[in-house]
Amino acid sequence: MNYGIIRYIIARVIFIEAAAMLLPWIVSLFYNERCGIIFLLCAVIGMAAGYFWARKKPANTSFFAREGFAMVALSWIVISLIGAVPFVISGVIANPIDALFEIVSGFTTTGSSILTDVEALPKCMLFWRSFSHWIGGMGVLVFVLAVLPMAGGQNIYLMKAESTGPSVGKLVPKVQKTAMYLYAIYTALTLSHLVLLIIGKVPLFDAFCLSFGTAGTGGFGVLGDSFASYSPFAQNSTTIFMLLFGINFNFYFYLISRRYKNALAMEDVRWYFIIYIVVSAIITLNLLSAGSFVSLREVLFQTSSIMTSTGFASADFNLWPSLSRALMVMIMFTGACAGSTGGGMKVSRFVIYVKTVAKELRQLAHPRSVKLLKMDGKPIEHEVIRIVNVYLCAFVFVFAASFGLILLDGFDLTTSFTAVAATLNNIGPGLNIVGPTGNFADFSALSKLVFIFDMLAGRLEIFPMLLIFNPGTWRKRG
Amino acid sequence: MNYGIIRYIIARVIFIEAAAMLLPWIVSLFYNERCGIIFLLCAVIGMAAGYFWARKKPANTSFFAREGFAMVALSWIVISLIGAVPFVISGVIANPIDALFEIVSGFTTTGSSILTDVEALPKCMLFWRSFSHWIGGMGVLVFVLAVLPMAGGQNIYLMKAESTGPSVGKLVPKVQKTAMYLYAIYTALTLSHLVLLIIGKVPLFDAFCLSFGTAGTGGFGVLGDSFASYSPFAQNSTTIFMLLFGINFNFYFYLISRRYKNALAMEDVRWYFIIYIVVSAIITLNLLSAGSFVSLREVLFQTSSIMTSTGFASADFNLWPSLSRALMVMIMFTGACAGSTGGGMKVSRFVIYVKTVAKELRQLAHPRSVKLLKMDGKPIEHEVIRIVNVYLCAFVFVFAASFGLILLDGFDLTTSFTAVAATLNNIGPGLNIVGPTGNFADFSALSKLVFIFDMLAGRLEIFPMLLIFNPGTWRKRG
Repeated sequence: MNYGIIRYIIARVIFIEAAAMLLPWIVSLFYNERCGIIFLLCAVIGMAAGYFWARKKPANTSFFAREGFAMVALSWIVISLIGAVPFVISGVIANPIDALFEIVSGFTTTGSSILTDVEALPKCMLFWRSFSHWIGGMGVLVFVLAVLPMAGGQNIYLMKAESTGPSVGKLVPKVQKTAMYLYAIYTALTLSHLVLLIIGKVPLFDAFCLSFGTAGTGGFGVLGDSFASYSPFAQNSTTIFMLLFGINFNFYFYLISRRYKNALAMEDVRWYFIIYIVVSAIITLNLLSAGSFVSLREVLFQTSSIMTSTGFASADFNLWPSLSRALMVMIMFTGACAGSTGGGMKVSRFVIYVKTVAKELRQLAHPRSVKLLKMDGKPIEHEVIRIVNVYLCAFVFVFAASFGLILLDGFDLTTSFTAVAATLNNIGPGLNIVGPTGNFADFSALSKLVFIFDMLAGRLEIFPMLLIFNPGTWRKRG
Repeated sequence: MNYGIIRYIIARVIFIEAAAMLLPWIVSLFYNERCGIIFLLCAVIGMAAGYFWARKKPANTSFFAREGFAMVALSWIVISLIGAVPFVISGVIANPIDALFEIVSGFTTTGSSILTDVEALPKCMLFWRSFSHWIGGMGVLVFVLAVLPMAGGQNIYLMKAESTGPSVGKLVPKVQKTAMYLYAIYTALTLSHLVLLIIGKVPLFDAFCLSFGTAGTGGFGVLGDSFASYSPFAQNSTTIFMLLFGINFNFYFYLISRRYKNALAMEDVRWYFIIYIVVSAIITLNLLSAGSFVSLREVLFQTSSIMTSTGFASADFNLWPSLSRALMVMIMFTGACAGSTGGGMKVSRFVIYVKTVAKELRQLAHPRSVKLLKMDGKPIEHEVIRIVNVYLCAFVFVFAASFGLILLDGFDLTTSFTAVAATLNNIGPGLNIVGPTGNFADFSALSKLVFIFDMLAGRLEIFPMLLIFNPGTWRKRG
């Protein structure tokens, strides 16, 4: 294990996070909030610490998958611990575990909350909460890669460990360029949404926070009723932008570079829209037949919000009939496209699962048929299929273990099951007690720690978080 | 596709099933039940039909995995259709779908029932219902293999398709001998349990039916309260025998042939007992802390009953606290050992899943470490790991699709989820409406058909049932 490079990278991450804390401080100046000074303090201390720790470049800058995974997991734990400090010091969320839960929910773009009254928070705190979505959405290490050039071609390991989906490729030969492109697309989309929200008569502060929440597919709102009281125009444009942020960012890169054929060949994007449309249609029919249909806008918003793992609520889907509620839970698992800011297990993994099963049946029926699994017209590497399968196993185990621990609190099965589903898939709300109008406040400290682990595991796609708890990881290379 | 051999084998299966129907007819003579004559009729017609169809041996007796899977799936559908006839003709279960549900639940050793009053049934019908567990437990094709010698070495495909677990091996070089050994062990264990039940003051008729239900890990009882009113001795001995039938039968073969070292090296048997003990302990503590602990006998019986997928009830575990209820649902999925009569996904698959994930972590931490996955001290074939992984995908899809269809009935999520879990894992009872004191009567015809598919898919481990719905299966070999 190359400890030098890990220290170096984490120091840079701390620097970046501390710099980001200047923004909520500026917000506090506008609203004359005295607690904003805490952000300035944290920013100064953090930037100084980050600067000094990163001053000495490590002698050996080479690293591999192992260091990449460990770095990413540790970075996320560190930014969470630091990010929770303002909540605790200001007393806004005095309990350190609650504060950690809230900021992890922010960075991992989950959007689950332990707050019972969001509107009581100072603006600067609300801003920090929502801005953490934006930082976490595309990834803090991807940002580090984008702004700080690093020697060595192994940066791809960092990107692989932090980006979502089964196979992460470089858009352009250089990792730094790729990271810059991603952030450019990300920023452009965020700004477009911001403008639409302002046109939709959303107050400026709210518009900023909501556009961060949409971009990162996070879901923290600034009002107690989440999205219900904003204008239909604001809701509809958010429906569309949630969907846009759930698309594989390679799609945009292809569009920009006029490789339309490549863009259209992306199977996970195609299936992502098919699932979205089919699920929305079934829910509409189900609500109509149950007599609880209100508007198509509501259905499209809610389906988009849950499938992309954003978690904004314009309606209390906890009151919907069983079938619709179950469909909402199911699309929590399918999630958004790989390579997007969205969570869940990712559509592309499910496409691979379906193809694997279909291939097995074909091979049983015709043992001599040799057909490779293809995705986007290209054969899928054997290694990718293997890891996607192992991922399913790991996911199931983390889910089952979390579910078992959460149940110690004695809540009902649906609450406990969907609470784990909502955190491990980085959605936000679940059903019953953790439904759109509920929150995670009543869980025990142990359960909250489990949720914190699950949110991180979900965002980093399980393996990095398991790896740092594996003693073998920290041993010297044999 | 070799249609000749499929016809030939299915004709033999029909003959065997028809012969088995003579037993309930004999029972009806004891109890002077006039409806028993139906069984004699079915037996005579079925044996005649089976005999004639199997008279002409097919010219080509060679077949492969494809034919093996198709034969097994078709055989199970045929025996179910025939087995339901007495229920319908006698009017005991007049609705054909209900009758089919009941007998499929019998043959697949599920034990879910659509009957609201079991005790109202004539003895011969109760006997047939329970005897179907015994036939289905070890498998009707394994029986055919045991009693009718067949040319060709491909019979192993039949055994593989009908037996449970990821890798089916022959105990002895000849398939027929292996099948005979299996049935000998099966019969000996059944008789031992029968004797213990009689010693435990269980009425003779009940003792027969219950020993069939235990042997096949089926779970149909003959009393309305399942097992609650039998003596503690009968309950305890059933706890033990349910566990014994959930053990990989290779274990007994090793014991008999004095290969104790092989027997002790069986990892799935070890983990099976570890899981049983740990889950029982947690449930005991949970019940104690909730103040709803009645007796250790009850906990051990219920855990054994669900984990082995038997489904007898000595207590209404639907009234237990959330954690205990959820643990019951979880062990529905782990299930019993491979190569046993038990259902579920099988402990050995989970052992492989855990090992796969552990290996992945090890490899991420130390990319150059090359360690093979081992089971029982021997390396696991790559092909086995692959199929076990594909099985998980297929299982998840069948589960999700069934769950979605069942939800159209509008029952609550826990009922719907556990109803699918209970049928696809061949358990019997679930929670809430389908709990130990409930039944499946209120579901729609569509849902019952889904359950019928799930029970068959669960018993035959998914692929055979998917295969016969795959059009490619029926095409000529290319």
